[in-house]
Amino acid sequence: MFQSTIKTETLKEIVDITATLVAETKFNISKEGIELRTVDLAHVAMIDLNISSAAFISFKSKGVELGVNLDKLKDVLRLAKSGDEIQMKHDEEKNKLVVRVANITRRMALVDTAGMSDPKVPSLDLPAKVTLKTSDLARGIQAAVGVSDHVAFIARTDGFDIVAEGDTDTVSLNLEKEKLEDLICKEKVRSMFPIEYLARIVKEVKSEHVTLTLGSDFPVKLEFDIAHGNGHVVYLLAPRIENA
Amino acid sequence: MFQSTIKTETLKEIVDITATLVAETKFNISKEGIELRTVDLAHVAMIDLNISSAAFISFKSKGVELGVNLDKLKDVLRLAKSGDEIQMKHDEEKNKLVVRVANITRRMALVDTAGMSDPKVPSLDLPAKVTLKTSDLARGIQAAVGVSDHVAFIARTDGFDIVAEGDTDTVSLNLEKEKLEDLICKEKVRSMFPIEYLARIVKEVKSEHVTLTLGSDFPVKLEFDIAHGNGHVVYLLAPRIENA
Amino acid sequence: MFQSTIKTETLKEIVDITATLVAETKFNISKEGIELRTVDLAHVAMIDLNISSAAFISFKSKGVELGVNLDKLKDVLRLAKSGDEIQMKHDEEKNKLVVRVANITRRMALVDTAGMSDPKVPSLDLPAKVTLKTSDLARGIQAAVGVSDHVAFIARTDGFDIVAEGDTDTVSLNLEKEKLEDLICKEKVRSMFPIEYLARIVKEVKSEHVTLTLGSDFPVKLEFDIAHGNGHVVYLLAPRIENA
Repeated sequence: MFQSTIKTETLKEIVDITATLVAETKFNISKEGIELRTVDLAHVAMIDLNISSAAFISFKSKGVELGVNLDKLKDVLRLAKSGDEIQMKHDEEKNKLVVRVANITRRMALVDTAGMSDPKVPSLDLPAKVTLKTSDLARGIQAAVGVSDHVAFIARTDGFDIVAEGDTDTVSLNLEKEKLEDLICKEKVRSMFPIEYLARIVKEVKSEHVTLTLGSDFPVKLEFDIAHGNGHVVYLLAPRIENA
Repeated sequence: MFQSTIKTETLKEIVDITATLVAETKFNISKEGIELRTVDLAHVAMIDLNISSAAFISFKSKGVELGVNLDKLKDVLRLAKSGDEIQMKHDEEKNKLVVRVANITRRMALVDTAGMSDPKVPSLDLPAKVTLKTSDLARGIQAAVGVSDHVAFIARTDGFDIVAEGDTDTVSLNLEKEKLEDLICKEKVRSMFPIEYLARIVKEVKSEHVTLTLGSDFPVKLEFDIAHGNGHVVYLLAPRIENA
Repeated sequence: MFQSTIKTETLKEIVDITATLVAETKFNISKEGIELRTVDLAHVAMIDLNISSAAFISFKSKGVELGVNLDKLKDVLRLAKSGDEIQMKHDEEKNKLVVRVANITRRMALVDTAGMSDPKVPSLDLPAKVTLKTSDLARGIQAAVGVSDHVAFIARTDGFDIVAEGDTDTVSLNLEKEKLEDLICKEKVRSMFPIEYLARIVKEVKSEHVTLTLGSDFPVKLEFDIAHGNGHVVYLLAPRIENA
């Protein structure tokens, strides 16, 4: 059983973030809220998104798993005008997701969740942690586009750098400690990541700050709040190991 | 003889509506105004557009038929700035349409009207009539895109529905009587129409309300005012007959 | 040696104008400022752009020639927010152009200038001179698109016309003397030019007025200020000789 009402902008946040990796996903719905755990086809990135029932205008569930096509939800979101609320309800009898906005009702076929894996969030012990403005991260990544396909995140004891090195050009964003919201770094660490993935996710981050947890040649954990703090996203991205 | 001055926005309304069906059309110009009667190549839809001389800033004609290329008029409309007036004049000697906007004069070759038919508006006795907000109609049609290629218009004694049924999903816009501007319906009627045609025309309707006249498996008559009430459009669309 | 700080909008003006003809160009940098002299591959148009050191926030050079890829400068310009300043510096040791905006540093490989010609600005004795609003020139050129590939500039003793003649249609912009900022013309002259070149350059002109110097079947000199008068551009365009 699942029945809820949510602001258009909150549902849009959830859908847009998840759609950077997949077109279909499993909504794990409990009494307390919804969790989406998603890995992209190439197994390069994982999203672990949690949203509390407090992010909803109304929320009722005894727990259910629903396989949802995100493109169909985007169709409905496009119909919503600013201020519209969206109702979502599981029609158990016909096994459809019934979505309502204004006078419109869309009855969506659910996706079979049997084939969907339940990815486990790996436990990582990453030594460095950087909290920076989302706009700074976005600019550093945008600057790297066209210079290289990969970008290095470098945490220093006194700052944080995003560096891309191409055949002829290099580009770097350098943020000294005072430009950062927070920095925990005992010794310099460096890992490289695909720009394409970073560019897609950073575009969807609406919170003012992002926290990166980093090691050397380790995955990065990119964390940020959604739904004005009533939800949280952990985005894990595999490193590209540089030639030794 | 034909000589006139018109507001850019009024000419744009006429051209944009007619261009949803054809690239060239015949302007039937009389003393009282202009009538355009147009059928698309596939003979699925017809437009009967009438605009009174009162919609013009100045208007003089003894009656003439001019074959006009709408893309060329669009070129001229793109040159106009907000507030610009457009002059149109028939140069009888050279058989050109002379169009002026600001300091620019475009002399257009006319299209031979010999090959252009004079479609007759069929007389239809349609039992139901619904007047609704153009924005509601537009949302109902937009909601159906991607679900199906066709949409059913259903008039009920107590409301009006737009329904699209796809292989896996359905979507409906339901408007109860109090959400409608007007409703005349003694018994439920239902007809199906191609979404593509509806989406194209509804985008060009500038009036706040649209009136639909409907039967069961009959064409729909979609009517609306143009030029702030100094003109009127009847858009006729053939139904898709559902399998019995 | 070259080291400078410039407003984003000023650098953008220089790059956008020059990029209408070429993707790479030579910056001739002296103590007094920068000159770019550029001919397109087809040798149809030439730009002679001069910008004084006064257009910069700071400017230091002993004179140097730098081959610059304009697409890379555009990449950096896209990173700048309104109000950002851009620093450019020649790293002589590594022969790179170091460009800084906000916290971002891009180190660009320079282009070999050995293969770049130093086009000479031909000395032309053109009898007519017209100064008009850039917006009028832009409208006249836009009006001609779709009618013909070429446009005639006609200076009269009492005005200036832009005329395009197609197979079926003609279009003209007619500006009488009082609509012009300035007119020097003792007898009528007429030359034809490719619309594509004119459309590309006129889009980048930010100054309110443009001066055209014209003859009959001669190149046109299109001149305008940049950087609020601290720079000047001469754009030379070859005529299309009409059949006698």
